[in-house]
Formats: sequence, C-alpha cells, structure tokens
Amino acid sequence: MNAPARFFPADEPLRYVGPLSRDPYGFRWYDKDQLVLGKRMEDHLRFAVAYWHSFTWPGGDPFGGETFLRPWMHGADEMALARAKADVAFELFRILDVPFFCFHDRDIAPEGANLKESNANVRAIAEIFARKMESSKVRLLWGTANLFSHRRFMSGAATNPDPDVFAWSAAQVKNVLEVTHELGGENYVLWGGREGYETLLNTDLPRELDQMARFLNLVVEHKHKIGFKGTILIEPKPQEPTKHQYDFDVGTVYGLLCRAGLEKEVKVNVEANHATLAGHSFEHEIAMAAALGIFGSIDMNKGDAQSGWDTDQFPTNVEDTALAMYEILRAGGYTTGGTNFDAKIRRQSIDPEDLVLAHVGAMDVCARALLIAADMLEDGALQKAVDERYAGWNEPQNRAMLREGASLEAIAARAEADDLDPQPRSGRQERLETLVSSYFR
Amino acid sequence: MNAPARFFPADEPLRYVGPLSRDPYGFRWYDKDQLVLGKRMEDHLRFAVAYWHSFTWPGGDPFGGETFLRPWMHGADEMALARAKADVAFELFRILDVPFFCFHDRDIAPEGANLKESNANVRAIAEIFARKMESSKVRLLWGTANLFSHRRFMSGAATNPDPDVFAWSAAQVKNVLEVTHELGGENYVLWGGREGYETLLNTDLPRELDQMARFLNLVVEHKHKIGFKGTILIEPKPQEPTKHQYDFDVGTVYGLLCRAGLEKEVKVNVEANHATLAGHSFEHEIAMAAALGIFGSIDMNKGDAQSGWDTDQFPTNVEDTALAMYEILRAGGYTTGGTNFDAKIRRQSIDPEDLVLAHVGAMDVCARALLIAADMLEDGALQKAVDERYAGWNEPQNRAMLREGASLEAIAARAEADDLDPQPRSGRQERLETLVSSYFR
Amino acid sequence: MNAPARFFPADEPLRYVGPLSRDPYGFRWYDKDQLVLGKRMEDHLRFAVAYWHSFTWPGGDPFGGETFLRPWMHGADEMALARAKADVAFELFRILDVPFFCFHDRDIAPEGANLKESNANVRAIAEIFARKMESSKVRLLWGTANLFSHRRFMSGAATNPDPDVFAWSAAQVKNVLEVTHELGGENYVLWGGREGYETLLNTDLPRELDQMARFLNLVVEHKHKIGFKGTILIEPKPQEPTKHQYDFDVGTVYGLLCRAGLEKEVKVNVEANHATLAGHSFEHEIAMAAALGIFGSIDMNKGDAQSGWDTDQFPTNVEDTALAMYEILRAGGYTTGGTNFDAKIRRQSIDPEDLVLAHVGAMDVCARALLIAADMLEDGALQKAVDERYAGWNEPQNRAMLREGASLEAIAARAEADDLDPQPRSGRQERLETLVSSYFR
Amino acid sequence: MNAPARFFPADEPLRYVGPLSRDPYGFRWYDKDQLVLGKRMEDHLRFAVAYWHSFTWPGGDPFGGETFLRPWMHGADEMALARAKADVAFELFRILDVPFFCFHDRDIAPEGANLKESNANVRAIAEIFARKMESSKVRLLWGTANLFSHRRFMSGAATNPDPDVFAWSAAQVKNVLEVTHELGGENYVLWGGREGYETLLNTDLPRELDQMARFLNLVVEHKHKIGFKGTILIEPKPQEPTKHQYDFDVGTVYGLLCRAGLEKEVKVNVEANHATLAGHSFEHEIAMAAALGIFGSIDMNKGDAQSGWDTDQFPTNVEDTALAMYEILRAGGYTTGGTNFDAKIRRQSIDPEDLVLAHVGAMDVCARALLIAADMLEDGALQKAVDERYAGWNEPQNRAMLREGASLEAIAARAEADDLDPQPRSGRQERLETLVSSYFR
Ligand SMILES: [Co+2]
Ligand SMILES: [Co+2]
Ligand SMILES: [Co+2]
Ligand SMILES: [Co+2]
Ligand SMILES: [Co+2]
Ligand SMILES: [Co+2]
Ligand SMILES: [Co+2]
Ligand SMILES: [Co+2]
Repeated sequence: MNAPARFFPADEPLRYVGPLSRDPYGFRWYDKDQLVLGKRMEDHLRFAVAYWHSFTWPGGDPFGGETFLRPWMHGADEMALARAKADVAFELFRILDVPFFCFHDRDIAPEGANLKESNANVRAIAEIFARKMESSKVRLLWGTANLFSHRRFMSGAATNPDPDVFAWSAAQVKNVLEVTHELGGENYVLWGGREGYETLLNTDLPRELDQMARFLNLVVEHKHKIGFKGTILIEPKPQEPTKHQYDFDVGTVYGLLCRAGLEKEVKVNVEANHATLAGHSFEHEIAMAAALGIFGSIDMNKGDAQSGWDTDQFPTNVEDTALAMYEILRAGGYTTGGTNFDAKIRRQSIDPEDLVLAHVGAMDVCARALLIAADMLEDGALQKAVDERYAGWNEPQNRAMLREGASLEAIAARAEADDLDPQPRSGRQERLETLVSSYFR
Repeated sequence: MNAPARFFPADEPLRYVGPLSRDPYGFRWYDKDQLVLGKRMEDHLRFAVAYWHSFTWPGGDPFGGETFLRPWMHGADEMALARAKADVAFELFRILDVPFFCFHDRDIAPEGANLKESNANVRAIAEIFARKMESSKVRLLWGTANLFSHRRFMSGAATNPDPDVFAWSAAQVKNVLEVTHELGGENYVLWGGREGYETLLNTDLPRELDQMARFLNLVVEHKHKIGFKGTILIEPKPQEPTKHQYDFDVGTVYGLLCRAGLEKEVKVNVEANHATLAGHSFEHEIAMAAALGIFGSIDMNKGDAQSGWDTDQFPTNVEDTALAMYEILRAGGYTTGGTNFDAKIRRQSIDPEDLVLAHVGAMDVCARALLIAADMLEDGALQKAVDERYAGWNEPQNRAMLREGASLEAIAARAEADDLDPQPRSGRQERLETLVSSYFR
Repeated sequence: MNAPARFFPADEPLRYVGPLSRDPYGFRWYDKDQLVLGKRMEDHLRFAVAYWHSFTWPGGDPFGGETFLRPWMHGADEMALARAKADVAFELFRILDVPFFCFHDRDIAPEGANLKESNANVRAIAEIFARKMESSKVRLLWGTANLFSHRRFMSGAATNPDPDVFAWSAAQVKNVLEVTHELGGENYVLWGGREGYETLLNTDLPRELDQMARFLNLVVEHKHKIGFKGTILIEPKPQEPTKHQYDFDVGTVYGLLCRAGLEKEVKVNVEANHATLAGHSFEHEIAMAAALGIFGSIDMNKGDAQSGWDTDQFPTNVEDTALAMYEILRAGGYTTGGTNFDAKIRRQSIDPEDLVLAHVGAMDVCARALLIAADMLEDGALQKAVDERYAGWNEPQNRAMLREGASLEAIAARAEADDLDPQPRSGRQERLETLVSSYFR
Repeated sequence: MNAPARFFPADEPLRYVGPLSRDPYGFRWYDKDQLVLGKRMEDHLRFAVAYWHSFTWPGGDPFGGETFLRPWMHGADEMALARAKADVAFELFRILDVPFFCFHDRDIAPEGANLKESNANVRAIAEIFARKMESSKVRLLWGTANLFSHRRFMSGAATNPDPDVFAWSAAQVKNVLEVTHELGGENYVLWGGREGYETLLNTDLPRELDQMARFLNLVVEHKHKIGFKGTILIEPKPQEPTKHQYDFDVGTVYGLLCRAGLEKEVKVNVEANHATLAGHSFEHEIAMAAALGIFGSIDMNKGDAQSGWDTDQFPTNVEDTALAMYEILRAGGYTTGGTNFDAKIRRQSIDPEDLVLAHVGAMDVCARALLIAADMLEDGALQKAVDERYAGWNEPQNRAMLREGASLEAIAARAEADDLDPQPRSGRQERLETLVSSYFR
C-alpha cells in the first residue's frame, strides 16, 4: 500500500479553543481538564473512537460500493494493511486526544486460513496495539468479536442451528476476551449481530434462547476464570441485519439476563440509534437500564429521525444529547463505561478531514450537553419538581402499601372508609420542558 | 331510552352454512362441533366478544365525536341504560353463539358518586350477568378494571404519583377480581392503560416500576386468598395513550415479572395490534410468550399496516392469522385463555348489522386459520424442516456444550483442534413460505 | 357557567426579560421590537394562537375523557359559553401579546339546529371578535371550516359519497370564507380532515379526487368574487383520522393542484407534525414548498419522535426549529403566512398556567431559532459551501445542457469525446452540521 | 470460472400441476394458457425475472458480505463471467417459462476502463441476449441504467452537483435506451437511485429538481427521436439509499411530471415495497396511479411489515396480492407493463434451488391472486356496493355542482333553502372485507 506520510490534515493533538472560535480544528466546548461537578471533563465523558466505522467500513451501502478508497484497504499483504491501518488509527486517536478506543477482532486483523490463524492474527495486531497504547496512553474501552460478517455466521453465532458455529464463536470470543483482558480493556461487549431470526418458519425459538443463555454463561465463567475485572456488556438492538434480534431493547435484555441468572453479572451498552429503532428515546433506554441496575456504557450516535434503519450518524443535537447526559449523571456516571462514537461519516464524506471534523463536532456536542446536564443536576429544580410530584408517598400509610404485609383487602377497605376521591394535579410537562430549555447554552 | 324491541337484524343463533354459501348471516368456516386435531372447534378457539368496543365505544376518534347513536348511550338513568346495554350484549352473544365474553367494570356499569357506589354498580350489573349467563351458557373469559378513562387516572393507576390513586385502584381491582371470580371467569386481565409516562422529565422511573411490581403482587396474593383459580394476565402494549407503557411487549413484561418474582404466577394476554405497534409480528409475540412460559390468551384484532396507532380492526387476513394459530397450537393451545375480539367496527360502520357481520367475518377468518394451522401441524413437514436444521445439536459432543461443566476453554480447544470450518446451509425461507402457502384453502 | 373573574394567573402582557432571567412569566428570547435582518421580530414570526387546541379541546384522548374541566365547556346556554370562551381567548392573546389568532368555525360557535343557524352562530361570535380585535389589535391569521367533527362528515366533506354533504360543506366554507374576509383575515385554510378514505374497498378514488378538485375551484372562484385578497392554503397531512388523506404531503398537494389547475392560486400551510408523520423533516416540507412555489404558512408544533400519531406538542427543540426557520428565511419569509401554534398542552397539563407557559416557552424556542437562522443566513458560510458544490454548473457548456436545444445525443457524444471521468467530491455533511451547530446560542 | 454443466436442479420448463399437487417443481396455480376474463393467464400477468437480484446480488447486507458464492462472480475475465451469467439467467427463464426479463446495464456487463468501453460492454452482452431471446422467445420487459452503484454517482446522477456526472448519466441512459429499443423492450425505466439528498444542508433543492426535470425531458425527446414506442417509467421510492428520494411516491411523481410538462409522456412502475415504505398500501399506489392516468407497470415483491428498509422479499400473501391485482384489472390491466419480480431470495437462501422455488412460489401467489381478483371483478358485488354508495351523484342537481357554472354561492343558497340535513350511511367496511374474503380460494 502507499499510505501517505501523513493521512490526516492535522498533526498535533487538537486543543480547546473556546465557544467563540470559528477554527474547526479545535474544540469549542470540550475542555478535557475543566472540572464539572468536581470531575475532569475527560473523566466524565470517557470518549472512545470506534475502529470499525472509522477505519474498516469502506463507504458502501446496499445500493453502492466503496467510496472512501482508503489506502490501507487495497493491497495484497493483509497483515501489512492491518498494521498500516493501526498507524492511521492511533494517529487519529492522538489528534483527537481521546482516552479510549474500541474494536472488533475482525476490524483490526484479517481472517486467516482457519480459526487458529485468525485468532493469531488478532493477537499479532494486539501486540502492536500494546506498544502503541503504552506510548500514547490511549486505553481500550472494550473489545468484541465480530460474529456476523463472515458467511459462516449468516444464521447466527451462539444461536446458530449448526453447533460447530457455536463452538467456533466460543473460540473466537475466548480469544478476544483474553486479548481485551491483556490490553487492560475496561469492558467486553457482546453485540447480537445475527442472534435472532429472519423467519420464525425455520427457527426453533426456545432452543435458540437456551443456546444464547448458555453462551452468555460460558463467557461470564471464563471472565472470572481469567480474572478479568471489566464488565460484560450486551448491546441491545431490535432488528437489522435480522428481522428480529433477541436483544431487542434494554427491557428485553433484562428479562433474558434474569432467565439466564445473569442480571447481576452482565450490563448493557446502550446505543442511541438502536434505542430509537426500538421505539424508545435514547434517554429512556439509559434511564431504564439504570432503574433495572444494568446500565454500563453507551454507543453515542444518532439515527435519522425519518429512516427505518441504523444510520449511525454522529450526534448533532445538543438538546437531545443533554437529556441523555442528564440520565447518565443521575445514574452516577460511568464506572467502567464510556462514550463510544459508534458513528460513521456519511459515505459522501470521503476526505480524511471529514473523519477528524466529524469526531470534533460530536465531542463538542457531548461536552456541551454534559455542561447543560450538570447545570440541570446542580440547580436541582427539575429533581425538586419530581420529588414534589411524588411527595404523597412519604406519608407512612402510603409507604406501608408498598411493603410486605399490605393487602388488597386492607387497602381497599381504607379507600372506601376514607371515601378517597383523588384529584388530578398538573403534570406540568411544558413548564418542565421550558425549564430544561433554559439550561441550554 | 327507547331501545327497539330487537336491535339486531337477526334473531336466531347463526349457523354453519359452509364455504360455498354466499349468505352473510351464516358461518362459512366456523363449525363449532367440527373436530380439529381431536377437539371441537369451539373448544379450540374459545371465542369471546368484548363489551367495551362493541357496546361502550360511541364511534368517536380524536377528530370527531359519536357516530353510532346507540339507544343505550342516551338517557338519564344510567343504571337503566346499563341494563339495556346488557340486554343487547347478550342478544349479540346469542346470535353469534360464542362461548365467552369479556368486560371492564366501567363498561358494564356507570361510575357512581364515589368508590363504594361505583363498585356497587358493578356488582349490581354482575348479578344480572349471573342470571343471563346461567340461562345462556355464555361464560366469562375475563374481567378487568378500567383504570385509565377517568381523569383521576390521567397520571397512571398503580404507578400514579398520588398514593390515593394507588389505593383507589387497589379497591377497584379487588372488586372486579372478586366479581370475576364469582362469575366463574377463567382469567383476570391487567392492561397497563396509563402505567407509563408522557415525559421522563416528571417521572420517577424506578419508583414507578416498584409501585407496579408491588401492585402486581398484591393482586396475586388476593387471588390466592379468595381461591380464584383463573390466570392473572398482563396485556403488553408499547405506547398509547402514554408515550411509553411499562408493559411494552412480551419480552419486557417477562423481565418485569422476574423483577417482581412473578414469572411463574402471571401470564400474558397478547394482542395482535399491540404486537405490531411494538415492532413484532403477532406470531412472534405468541411464540416468544410460549418460549418464556408465559403464554396465556389473545386479543384478536389487527392494526392498519400503515398506521402508527392502535386501530383495533377485525382480523381479515387468513394467511396472517394462520401463522398466529399455528404458534398457539404449537404452544399446546389455550388452557384458561381464549380468542377475544378486542376489535371495533370502523366508526363509519354505524348499522347494527355491521356489528354482527364484523364478528361473523372475523370468526370465519379464525376458523379457517385454525384449519390451516392444524393441517400444518398434522402434516409435520414444517416441523421436520426445522428439526433437520438443528439436527447437529443431537450429537452428544454438541449437547454437552450446553450443559454445566462445559467451558469456553474446552470448547475453544476442540474447535481449534478439530480445525472446524462450518459451512453455511440454506435457510430455505422461500421454500418454507411456499410450503405454508400450500396449506391455505 | 362560573368563570372566575380572571382565568389566567397573569394580568398584564408578558414582556421580554432576557436570557439570563429565571422568571417563567417573561420572554427570554422573544423581544418583539428587536430588529432581525432589518425587520422587527414580531413581523418575522407573526405568531398566532389556535382557538381549537387552546380553548375547545377538553383534554380527551382515545382512552379517556375530559381532564381540563374548563368553565366555558359546562353549561346549558351554548352561545353564552361561546362568549365566555371568547373572553378567555382574547385574555390569553393579550397576555401573550401575540399579533394573530386562528379558528375553525365550530370552535368559536356551537352547531345550531340547522345549517342556517349554525352559520348564524358563527357570524354572531365573529361580530364579538370584530369588536375585540379592534380594541386589542389582535388580527386574524386565518379562519377555516370544521368539516370533520360532526358525524355527517364521517365519510368526508367535499369527497363525501353523499352530494348533500358536498353542498353542506360548500355552504359552510362560503360562510367562514366570508367571515374571514370580513374580519380582515390574511389567509383561508382548508385542512383535509376526512378527505381521504378508510378502505379502498368502498371508495371511488378518481371520483373523489374530482370532487375535491372541483370544490377547490369553487372556493377559489368565490374568493375572487368577494374580493378576498388573502391566500387560500391547503394543510397537508398523510393520514389520521383517515387511513389515507388525499393531501398527503407537500409534493402530493402540488400534483393535486396542478391537476386542478390551481398551482398558481393555492399554497400550503405546512405543519411540523404532519411533515414527520409523512416521513419528512419539517424543514424538508418547507423547502419543498418553496421550491415548488407554494409555500404559504406554518403550523408550528412537534410530534413525539417515537409515536405514530399527531401529538401536536409545543416545540421544544431550538436546533430543529432553527433549521425550519432557516428555510423560511431562505424562502423570503412569510408574506400572508405566519407561525400558528397548532399545539396542545398535554392532557395532564390541567392548570390555566400551563396554557400560558406552554406558549411562552414555544415563542421563545421560535425566537431563539429565528436569531440562529438569521445568523446562518447573514454569515453566509453555509450558502457559500452549497454554491461551491454546484459551481461547475456555471460553466457555459454545462448550463447549456439544461436549456432547450440540448439533446441526449449531443451530450453523450461530448461525454465520450471528452472521455469524462467525474471524480466524487466530499459532501462534507458533518462539517456543515458542525458549522450549523456553531450558530446555536 | 467453473460453472457446473447445469446450475439449477431442474432441466425442463416447469409445468402446471394443479393445487392438489405437493410437487414443489410445478405450478399449483399458474396455468399460463388458462383463460381468465377472456385472456390467457400469461398475457394477464406478463411475468418478468429481474437480472440484478437474481444473478448480480451476492447475498451481502450492511453487516456481512457475500453468501451465495455464485461461480460467475469469481474470476478474472469479467466479460467471460458476464457471458456465463447470461447462460444461467436464460436457463432460469427457460425453467420458469416466463415471457419477460428486465435488467440494469451494469448487471449484465462489467464497467469498462471508461464510458465508451462500459457502453460497449453492454452492447456486446446485448448481442448475446438478442440471439438468446430469438431462440427462447423470452422478451425484454424493460431495461434501465444503473446510475447509483459506482462512487461517481454517490451524490446523484441527473441531480448531481457535478455537471460531468449529468453528462455521463445522459450518455449511459442513451446507450441503454437504444439497447432496450433494439432488443424490442416494451418499456424503459428510470429509478431515482440517488436522485435525492442526504442532508438539505449541502443541497440546492430547486436546482436539483430542475436538473431532474430537464433530464427527463431529454430522455423523452430521445425516445421519440429513435422511434422507441415503449413507455418511459419512473419507479417511485421514498428513501433509501438517500434520506429523501425526489420520486417519493406516485402522488409526488405526478406533481414532478406536471412541473416538467410530462404527465402525458411518462408513467410509473409501482413497487410494492416502495409503496409500503412511503406509508401506502401497494393497492393504493396502483389505484392512485390509475386515477392520475399514469399507471404503467409493477415491481412485485413485499417488504417485511416490521422493518423500515427495502427488503424486496418475494410475495407470499395471496390475500394482499389479490387486492393489488384487483386494482390492476380495474385499471384495464397492463398495456406495455408487466409483473416484474423485483425480489431477492434471503441471503441465507444460498442453494440454486432456492432461486427457482422462490420464483415458482411467487408466480403461484400472483396467479392465485389473479383468479381471485377476476372473480371479484366478474361477480361485481364489490363494484355494485361502491356504485350504490355514490348513487346520489347521479342526480342532475348533484352532477351540476361538479360542472363549470356552479358556484359556492348557488350551492350554499340551495343547501340553506332546502334545509339539507345529510344523514350518514354505513361505510360497511367489515361487510366488504368479508365479501372480499369470500372470494379467496
Ligand atoms: Co453500536
Ligand atoms: Co447502530
Ligand atoms: Co387488547
Ligand atoms: Co389495541
Ligand atoms: Co395543523
Ligand atoms: Co397536527
Ligand atoms: Co423496484
Ligand atoms: Co425495492
């Protein structure tokens, strides 16, 4: 390959230039050392760049092929190309000055002649990563195995009708989980990919659910065996590529975890675009995960509000993002999780510069959203309104209804005896929306 | 009121006339005594007419009011109107010769001056029901409490910020649950109604989930206390009237049941239109419920495929319905459940005749679908294709992967050692679709 | 009725208090006399309050009835109630200090015993309006006839199978068009309501399209006959209450206008929520209307991004609104049109205060959006990027391809002769999105 | 390449075997010589096989690559592969015994080193086609140019910001239009492909609409110049791959044609899946096209009812398809149009047999639907119900309202004078749905 000496039109890490600057090569809002609620902005946001969309996707869509013509995608020596790709990737991490990155095994290293060689390829590149991470201080937010691109996975991985694919998947996950552990990764992600079905007509649904549950348990057991302290994350998605994904949304995943006995072991990686495809707002899925005790990390992006597929666009709307950030802050912020840009530049954005500026814009959207969310939290007016709305539940007789010992009979008797006649009180939605709007800046 | 001596243009129970008949006042496919897979068609389908859509909804929509002008909806003496409505209802049950009906408390009896009187009104009408049921042999598939129409429920029932509404709801459910028990009802249904939120901004999500879980437990405890042997059913719906309903779909409800410790106690009433609004096919929701062990009953209807709200239309598509019936048969058929027409005639269908013929058409759609589904099951070609697809899992070493004792490590070692190279096999979707099509008649 | 002496918790017109104020009873961004691009903000935005959602809708939804309990909705003397409603309406107009309002005939006056009396009722209230408008300086943005709420319209108005309904509709429109003219209204709106179908099975589609086209022509002819100088506007909506509305979206309406020979006579009133229900962004529909030469006015509101029906919420997102305002400014701004809040407070927002604050918040969202859009336009960086993208079309030989005289043959010959090999250039989407984001304040 | 001597597991043209046969290698309903409404079934349905989905698509989706591994897709000599593909294609046409096929230029021949060579490649394969068509009697339903797959088209073809792409597209269309003419094609299709936008921010909307209108006129002019008697067809699609396609749906295309002065020259090719993606039923789009006088041909397929992208599945639902066939028959049937299977087997359907059986199943679905639709038409009960519903319009005074000379004033005067009080009549939707159901067999 003939990679240019320098792929991106920037050399030094980009810096904070402030909201008034018009320089696109600087952060207008992301000021990594700025303290927000007593914590550095970088430590709040924990940004990660995704290897696959940024360096592996060639710009194709269902109606057309490659548009990007990246130099590292064209050549005969696939391992050499993978190393060149790694150089460009870490160049971008350095320019963006992000603390984290994420990867699928197949994004970083080519499929080999067989399973063993494929896994070895991943380990070979991982060694290069280890050196680059040491010198650059970039860390691994999470690794994951690509169990969906190759045709062997066309009918699923853990849920495949062919047990050999289950076995293959187990081997591949074992390899990436260990690599993730060795690279100091803070999480390991399982995205369903093709764990679902195209048609019920050829599907043994209960069997597939059992296979998936068993696979999950195998992964969790291995995590403990090797001493990996990170979090195992499932990334819900309702459909696409399949007609139905088993990990449809946060609520569904919680049920599957309970069924597998893993609701204390596994958490979720919530993606914005997957939330909206499932019929939820992004903040809903975060809040629901927090309420169920399984909030882990996020894939930050956005869908096109009028399109029915996963467009994985970079976030652009500060107001929408602030509502998500508010839910993350209310959930106590990330522990092992972070803000991974699972976002791809449009296929018409073919310049290297587009890749840089898309991330800069998105990081600024998130930083600005964080500042707004922090104001919302610190000011407390929103929480106060909520608390007042439920204040009646502080009364002892009302709290008692929710405790063991209460009975429908006793409650009903009291309701009739007291001749209860509850009067509605305004939900004040528009007032609260305007209140939220007042924090925007 | 001035109800005509006879409201419907039919007097005698409608009979089976066969597929070749053009008489709209007869069943072309529903032949209640016909044996299907060794069981009477009536006992398979267990049809129920819904009180609310058929007798209580006046034909309004968000942009216009009443169109039906039913005589029992206009008059001063509300209890007299309720009795007149009951007469018409049982007239329809008799004409259709259905074995079951269903009701909300508020559909059968008017709100009284207070809680006690409202409950008493329900009991008064229930006594009339008891007599009519005895003479007509119509049975109660399920009862339920309307906890969403009155303005006191505008912010929810069990999940209301006002504990008095929780108490009121408890009292109302207690009353209907007992009435249902006394009338020999086979199930008791909880439809979320407004158990959800309009905006997260004014919502304490974890608290509301806890309130709902506690309420559910109170209901189950009371069921056992009074010796009700029927099934408690939750009816999932993703949204509408709320922006988000907590009982979004079958998968989500399963998770909520696990969280409340009730996954062995409570089942689901799956509605076709709610399934599609949640992004699932009807047969998916039935199959998922069966796989999770919580399939109970169905609300049979259909949505408009291009509309984003709950149109609750009568089913018209035999082929779609057959796929649902097939899943019900595969799940072993109903135990306490049945096929409730949660369907309303269009608001332009203002003639009494429309109400009769809509049910006749729908019953025939279901009966024809049942015959097709039974053929599919009996022929076994579909199941055989599925079994062959998963046949590899019968091998001992493959079954072993799913059992305790297997480990990622051991599986991976074998995969590498055996140099597995799984080859994809056709999913044969179109062949199976054509096979299914060949059963249609 | 027992209307309180003062319905709203405010007495004086609300004033501009500036972005830093926390006072909810003041405008943080709407400063009516502030010059924006050389024009007063009030003259740019031309805000209107809608009579129906604010004063006529009782807070019901398909699953529950009235929540608001407005005093003017309960009483025996309907004309007295209508007058009381008018008092409250003009009180709100005064508090909000808006220059315009809009109404349906049925919202301002009750249905009478027959057509003549109904029309007379409208005229009687219109006379009251005339006096109130004179003293208050509030003007009429547009009037319209409600041809959808009464059951006579259940199968449409102009497109009704019953010609008497066509005639009735003509009479009703004639009355409101004249009243609108007499009140100095600046536009007259036709919203399809039920001009569409529930099922093709009972519909004569070409006939109904012809009826609608003829009706439109009758209205336009009458407009000219009475000397009404305002604009006739059609408000596209894809569906709801019908399964299919004939005025589906802007592009469809343009075709219907061409078919009726009215594309120079009639323009569109674009509603945000109708745009998104039709699968378009709001700014798309405005831009398309402008491109087709039929942009007239807007109904400002927003839909719930995850709900499939017309929620008609007050706008809350400044960034989304700014994109719409930018298209309006690019189209040259309003002539007779304006920003009508076709928005309703949520049915839980039962306090009079909610009605005031919802409008204040929405007006601020629009004002802030206008300031941003004006910056975008004035700065010119966005337009410059677009112009550069199409710069090649300034070349004479390229312009020539679009003119008469060019031929496929000649163009093809040149393409082969010149051995054209066009190279893609980046669409720069993310850079432009970040640029837009930089104008937000 | 190493194509097997025989690719498909069938050798002879498949024959009609009747509904009772279980042989998958025969038609259960499609009996080409059977007379339906006095016309041979083959002449009614005019089936066409699509080259691209069946022979060019490798089985990839956005999350995974090739699954089919067709022999003609792997090799160094691209023209040799194209010839091998043609052999297989005509083998399938022969087995299916279809009268027509369709193609994009790029599907039949590889891109050359430049425009001239690419066009020459198409002509070279077309010559092979000419010979094969002569011997096989298979005819060309339509040809079209692929103006969307290559990266040069990433920003559109006729609507590209780069005029060189416009010129290139003109040259490519000229070539395929002439090839289509020479091969005796009955239509020429324009599918928008990327004629739309990804973001309004970088788009000059009015300019692009003008470019498209001009391009259309160039094509029509060239058609006449070369004496092509076939129909020019536009294929509406709402979005995908773009965010917004200019040829959104039938109604929108009609408006664009009017704007370009081409509503008498160009018709539409209606695709089922594009209809549903645009929020319409398939039968709606056909009926609307017929009503507007622009119905041409159809792309027969179906979408997944719960997925938001173009799945292009083979049709499976006889009842849905019958409603579409009924509209086609009501429109007088095809003239130059036909039933093109723009459908792809699922990517898991990797066996050659799947390609055969998918078409067989779909042809039977259509044939059975045709028989049902013919019964509906012949019986006339449905049309009679519609006619009765609009019977009032036969009255002279009512017809007069639709004619020149009528005025709002006169109609209103009559309405008031006659004291009209139109009473709603039942729309009878459920009765008609049941009636339709009674024709299914
Ligand atoms: Co993701
Ligand atoms: Co995604
Ligand atoms: Co239901
Ligand atoms: Co429903
Ligand atoms: Co509107
Ligand atoms: Co609306
Ligand atoms: Co197509
Ligand atoms: Co398609």
